[in-house]
Amino acid sequence: MKDRNISLAVIRRLPKYHRYLKELLDNDIKRISSKELSKIIGFTASQIRQDLNNFGGFGQQGYGYNVEDLYNEIGKILGLTRNYNTVIVGAGNLGQALANYSSFDRLGFNLKGMFDINPKIIGLTINDVKVIDMDSFETFVNDNNVEIVYICTNRDGAQDVADRIQKTNIKAIWNFAPIDLKVREDIIVENVHLIDNLLTLSYFLKE
Amino acid sequence: MKDRNISLAVIRRLPKYHRYLKELLDNDIKRISSKELSKIIGFTASQIRQDLNNFGGFGQQGYGYNVEDLYNEIGKILGLTRNYNTVIVGAGNLGQALANYSSFDRLGFNLKGMFDINPKIIGLTINDVKVIDMDSFETFVNDNNVEIVYICTNRDGAQDVADRIQKTNIKAIWNFAPIDLKVREDIIVENVHLIDNLLTLSYFLKE
Repeated sequence: MKDRNISLAVIRRLPKYHRYLKELLDNDIKRISSKELSKIIGFTASQIRQDLNNFGGFGQQGYGYNVEDLYNEIGKILGLTRNYNTVIVGAGNLGQALANYSSFDRLGFNLKGMFDINPKIIGLTINDVKVIDMDSFETFVNDNNVEIVYICTNRDGAQDVADRIQKTNIKAIWNFAPIDLKVREDIIVENVHLIDNLLTLSYFLKE
Repeated sequence: MKDRNISLAVIRRLPKYHRYLKELLDNDIKRISSKELSKIIGFTASQIRQDLNNFGGFGQQGYGYNVEDLYNEIGKILGLTRNYNTVIVGAGNLGQALANYSSFDRLGFNLKGMFDINPKIIGLTINDVKVIDMDSFETFVNDNNVEIVYICTNRDGAQDVADRIQKTNIKAIWNFAPIDLKVREDIIVENVHLIDNLLTLSYFLKE
């Protein structure tokens, strides 16, 4: 598959394609043209053709795309052909919200444990997953082949968690704390910086 | 201020500048060159100069930027010179997590109420804010000059909330539900699509 050197902008659009194709599949739609897809997804038809061409192009001139094939191919590109073991650090409201998202599990992100330092929270069970003392973090993640950590601590605790992650086999961090973590280059970090997002909204509101 | 026709990419970087400048201010740093700023923020020095030039340019050749002035100017551009009344719809874990973020309040986003349809949640008080029955939504938001709604419902409830929003004076939606809402063009929508974000992470993990 020639999915090297693809721009970040294209990659960031792929999950949206994946989401819309799932909806089409659920509605039993088997074929779709770039023009029809454009109407529901909001990208232009030419953008869609260009995006999908990056990956070899799955459309047939005049016939449109086979929805299921395209969904599966994009899933493959996004790494959804296997499961990922995950843990959450910080079992407060946000951590609990993420633990309750059933879609993550459906897509193959299997939550193995949650961690906290608060004795009042340790021992709780959220959506069948136990909240464990942070003391056992390194042992647990290595024993359970955990690859992704969702950091849901506050700002002050996050870098500390990142430092501990670097002593384990963990490969990726999904960071919700309002800080840019300092980690080794081979660890993948994806940030959800809520304040940055909210300030973009106030920018447009002001305009 | 000549902040028209600025690319979305630049606008999306501004909150990050704002966040880092706040840190510098908190550490009592008064001046910073684009080169020094580059080291801590991760953008190149020339990118920084180019970004800030979009807004008239606040740097003085050889002297660097005045941190406080730059922080205030970017705050102005981001619409932070006044307060915004907000409400949360969906007072589950995610809604409660957002209600507990003190930074939103500090930046001028004042949470006036939370709404839910679940009788077990209605009447609760989260961080001094009452959870109200969704029945009173329209009256409440108009009476309290609410401008921004954070939608924290599940997928199925979100469009319904968006439809009701369009009958009020609300101007902006911060949407956390995994769906692209259909709303009038004059309503600003900023999405936090968690699954899209997670799938970007698995893409890189696969690579």
